[in-house]
Amino acid sequence: MNIRIYNARILTMQDGQDIFEGEIQIVGNRIAYVGKTEAMKSAIGEDTKMEESVWDREIDADQNLIMPGFKDAHTHSGMTFLRSYADDLPLSDWLNKQIFPMEAKLSPDDIYHLSKLAIMEYLTSGITANFDMYLTPDTIAKASYDSGFRTVMCGAFNNFSQSLEELEEWYLRYNDKESLVNFELGFHAEYTNSRENLEKLAALSHKYQAPMYTHSSESESEVEECRKRYGKTPTALFDELGIFDYGGACYHCVYMTDADLDIMKKKNIYVVSNPGSNTKLASGVAPIEEMLKKGIHVALGTDGPASNNCLDMFREMFLVTGLAKLKAKDASAVDANAVLRMATVEGAHAMGLSNADVLAKGKFADLIMIDLQQPNMQPINNISKNLVYSGSKQNVKMTMVNGRILYEDGKFDIGVDANEVYAKANEIMSGFTKKE
Amino acid sequence: MNIRIYNARILTMQDGQDIFEGEIQIVGNRIAYVGKTEAMKSAIGEDTKMEESVWDREIDADQNLIMPGFKDAHTHSGMTFLRSYADDLPLSDWLNKQIFPMEAKLSPDDIYHLSKLAIMEYLTSGITANFDMYLTPDTIAKASYDSGFRTVMCGAFNNFSQSLEELEEWYLRYNDKESLVNFELGFHAEYTNSRENLEKLAALSHKYQAPMYTHSSESESEVEECRKRYGKTPTALFDELGIFDYGGACYHCVYMTDADLDIMKKKNIYVVSNPGSNTKLASGVAPIEEMLKKGIHVALGTDGPASNNCLDMFREMFLVTGLAKLKAKDASAVDANAVLRMATVEGAHAMGLSNADVLAKGKFADLIMIDLQQPNMQPINNISKNLVYSGSKQNVKMTMVNGRILYEDGKFDIGVDANEVYAKANEIMSGFTKKE
Repeated sequence: MNIRIYNARILTMQDGQDIFEGEIQIVGNRIAYVGKTEAMKSAIGEDTKMEESVWDREIDADQNLIMPGFKDAHTHSGMTFLRSYADDLPLSDWLNKQIFPMEAKLSPDDIYHLSKLAIMEYLTSGITANFDMYLTPDTIAKASYDSGFRTVMCGAFNNFSQSLEELEEWYLRYNDKESLVNFELGFHAEYTNSRENLEKLAALSHKYQAPMYTHSSESESEVEECRKRYGKTPTALFDELGIFDYGGACYHCVYMTDADLDIMKKKNIYVVSNPGSNTKLASGVAPIEEMLKKGIHVALGTDGPASNNCLDMFREMFLVTGLAKLKAKDASAVDANAVLRMATVEGAHAMGLSNADVLAKGKFADLIMIDLQQPNMQPINNISKNLVYSGSKQNVKMTMVNGRILYEDGKFDIGVDANEVYAKANEIMSGFTKKE
Repeated sequence: MNIRIYNARILTMQDGQDIFEGEIQIVGNRIAYVGKTEAMKSAIGEDTKMEESVWDREIDADQNLIMPGFKDAHTHSGMTFLRSYADDLPLSDWLNKQIFPMEAKLSPDDIYHLSKLAIMEYLTSGITANFDMYLTPDTIAKASYDSGFRTVMCGAFNNFSQSLEELEEWYLRYNDKESLVNFELGFHAEYTNSRENLEKLAALSHKYQAPMYTHSSESESEVEECRKRYGKTPTALFDELGIFDYGGACYHCVYMTDADLDIMKKKNIYVVSNPGSNTKLASGVAPIEEMLKKGIHVALGTDGPASNNCLDMFREMFLVTGLAKLKAKDASAVDANAVLRMATVEGAHAMGLSNADVLAKGKFADLIMIDLQQPNMQPINNISKNLVYSGSKQNVKMTMVNGRILYEDGKFDIGVDANEVYAKANEIMSGFTKKE
């Protein structure tokens, strides 16, 4: 499809964050042109004017905002079935008594359907790509291909499930940056891996000069226990073992020493912060302002729907700055522009999607239209601040992934009826609870 | 209008929070019937069956949820013009250099239009009544009457504006619980009133045996300064002066001693918590769990759009429990049912709207329909938890105030075109910024 969107306000997220009036042209799955309306006119001119038939669709944006889609840089899509299943519980009971036993019941086919439900939720929140750590990569990949959604998967290697051979196999199988689905090396966490495993992971990363991804320093007790085992923090241990010699990202990073932060900076390891999950599970508040001051790259993730309980980047955007302000007792901490970068460009880079980071010629057409004709966006004093401080899913008018409009005006175009996906999720869950 | 809504899931918020399948009937501005479908059939029977023509409209709720509208128990509607005008600033600069000088430019007519914009935003978030502390009550009242929206106003008496005579006059003018608009006695804060003023306020409250409302203990410095002036906290001072002898509410209550909380309980003073504002302005986290444990009534407010920056009860609901969990380092703190009570029943009672608190025969028909056929509400493991932990404005399918549907499927019916309201807000703001 070739699509032209005109009469738009445009935030490209390139360099500065100026917003201009202009248009964007999508040819196939790429951005062919983005620019100001006046520049456009002279650039094309009479001679080179495209015939009308070249556009499958021309969309009048009606002065609404076109911007890059949000990148959910850490999530567990398949956990949609556990939304609101177990909340308001202490963390250890939640995980060991409720979450793990239920996950053990999942079939690969279940994960296919539950991932589709998550993809629908991403689309409603203007998320155009997710970085998914979960089980059975092949059915997650199929869910994304079938829906037309962009997903980077990562390994969850640990002492109990997934082998190193599988990890390598998946890494090689889903390794085409032109494709909708990719796979990165990853492991669940320090506390679910033996030292021997961690050493093998480092060797694998070195073999392919590949970045690595893991949960790290999410809770105080996790860091404590690592200190008892190794006499150092998880971050220091990873540094010593060379696991992140080719970069990557650590998820959560709530409890970080100053030395830990220096390692993150030195090794160019991204932090993916998950403020919604850290709040609801009472894990704590990550030192985001300190990270940014040190020049560490910070991206945002929702974490899975069992812990958050939703997949909504507007919530994460408000929380990441709000909690930083509370932590610093300073309303000027972590400003709106920094937050928008985290939710878009930094997220894309954290998950290896440098071709889907900003709106520019040649980039993948992963973009959203934000409805500004809503009371929460008026008056239009500052659009970036409106997005971060008053924006909501209700403002997402259209979500395009890889040049295809998958969500528009509340309707999905993902190859399956929404109600079928809901029915399937309820059926899976009622099957599980009946068996008990 | 007489409206029947059937095939609904219903959460009445009476007593327990069970959800049943049933229907609700609205005759004029009141609820005429609410109950289970089976009970309904036998209750009406053949003989008493209403003729079809009695219903102006019959709505198939399609298994979506009908529940009482949210009550925004503390806000400043007229401040919509300052949304995203001044953010990411230290509190004192924000207030003194940006907010106060801009507010000084407002005309009563401006406040009329800006209140309408706020009303539209309330409706999108399922809010059916607001408790508004702002200037020029007559134009605020007109905005609510013209829109069909329910508003309780309260005084903002202080050393610099509003006289005690005006306060009394407004209290007597808008004092009909059958009306859409009411007025309660109120003052801005301890720090903007002399001791003499505070004593006069106490006398006025005693004269009418009327509850009182004010901002209190929002910031650490506010409490410190009161201690310097009077040797006690604002709450202890109010207690000594007898200002809250007939109840009422204090807004914010972030910095409260144990003795303060005991006073709130003893005098039956409601706390209206504003977690969004307290977060964005870096004010701090209120001790909600301690309040609930002491049996203090807690309601929720958005505060004004200059400090939040939106009027969204879903944000407040997630934050009030999320911040309590972080504060207690306990994921079980302040559960979803407690939050739903705050956002509905407690809010209604805090603002004197006992006739709009729950869904029951004879109550005002102030209710909302929540769209459960959305990915963030699926699967349906627990609707109350879905509302609090994953709900969003996007789920608000319909908002009814006083028996009239004012918002449905994204469209407003408030006697004015939405775009006119937006244009007016932008016009007001551009007039102000040009004059500078």
